[in-house]
Amino acid sequence: MKTYQTNLTFRNPERGTYNITPSLNQTLQKSGIKTGLCHVFCQHTSASLIITENADPTVRDDIEFWLRKHVVDGDPNYKHHYEGKDDMSGHLRTLLTETSHTIPVTNGRLNLGTWQGLYLYEHRMGTFNRHLVVTVQGE
Amino acid sequence: MKTYQTNLTFRNPERGTYNITPSLNQTLQKSGIKTGLCHVFCQHTSASLIITENADPTVRDDIEFWLRKHVVDGDPNYKHHYEGKDDMSGHLRTLLTETSHTIPVTNGRLNLGTWQGLYLYEHRMGTFNRHLVVTVQGE
Amino acid sequence: MKTYQTNLTFRNPERGTYNITPSLNQTLQKSGIKTGLCHVFCQHTSASLIITENADPTVRDDIEFWLRKHVVDGDPNYKHHYEGKDDMSGHLRTLLTETSHTIPVTNGRLNLGTWQGLYLYEHRMGTFNRHLVVTVQGE
Repeated sequence: MKTYQTNLTFRNPERGTYNITPSLNQTLQKSGIKTGLCHVFCQHTSASLIITENADPTVRDDIEFWLRKHVVDGDPNYKHHYEGKDDMSGHLRTLLTETSHTIPVTNGRLNLGTWQGLYLYEHRMGTFNRHLVVTVQGE
Repeated sequence: MKTYQTNLTFRNPERGTYNITPSLNQTLQKSGIKTGLCHVFCQHTSASLIITENADPTVRDDIEFWLRKHVVDGDPNYKHHYEGKDDMSGHLRTLLTETSHTIPVTNGRLNLGTWQGLYLYEHRMGTFNRHLVVTVQGE
Repeated sequence: MKTYQTNLTFRNPERGTYNITPSLNQTLQKSGIKTGLCHVFCQHTSASLIITENADPTVRDDIEFWLRKHVVDGDPNYKHHYEGKDDMSGHLRTLLTETSHTIPVTNGRLNLGTWQGLYLYEHRMGTFNRHLVVTVQGE
């Protein structure tokens, strides 16, 4: 067994979900690991990772709808709004989704289900560089 | 250290939670691994995994109550309702819970707390086969 | 590659978030592992783990505000209230946050982002001992 670790950076233009599954499969190929686990970690508190349906993009529209409804941007009850109305809501949206995902590696590929995709979710409304640490462990 | 990986399939008769802790402990025994981590991954976007109290079943009734209240089935505001009123709510419920859990392995057993159980949560209202990938890494 | 596993216990005086990042870095040093993954598992169903901003404590105040608003303590609709009004809400708050987190290890340190901290979140209102299992795997 071995450990392979690398960094990936994505520049998110605006709030929304960005499919990073192809990038991750490329990283996995470089690792040379065929069976094991791939851990993807987002080093931020207002961007996160989700696994959801990869076929119909309206699924991600509805996720955004639900989050906007339940995690109000700029709620005047928040104490923390230093960086604007998407600051505290960004932290809450990150809390409700995932800072990291671990995905099985089988035959050198991410062993996702047919309808699953891995998305980087930008919760801030501006453009941000987001750093991920990818760690693959296996044989 | 070694990696052991296998697949499990469960047939969920209807929406609800199904205790898969005993199946996982059986899988762990086959792996022969005594100390390490056990990763369970659900290959679906409208079924998920939760760890919660294993003693009083009303805990899981109340989880279902909370999810039904906050993630409305068939909300007319959803764009995505191709497979029915439990389609988009299933994706949202999966998002708020977990696609995978990682549990420590100690003395060849899942090292859960006394009151913790691992449940497969079916969010669709019909009967579905659900596929899990289990990966155990350790010594 | 090797596996290092140990237990940590924290005594939480009351509902709230407790920064356990320094304790985890100490545990990591003892492991001797320089590159890999650190998995922290909370063996309870009414206490959980979150990664959020470590700079401004009002972020965690606002998280508590959001959870109190959306996960009502002592909701008369809950069936499960054996241990009081924070019993079922504690289980729901645990469900919406994390029972475990996995963090990359790089150069023998938790490779968190600049603004990330790992917190143990006590959801019950009294004083509780909480047990964590820490597993580090790597080189």
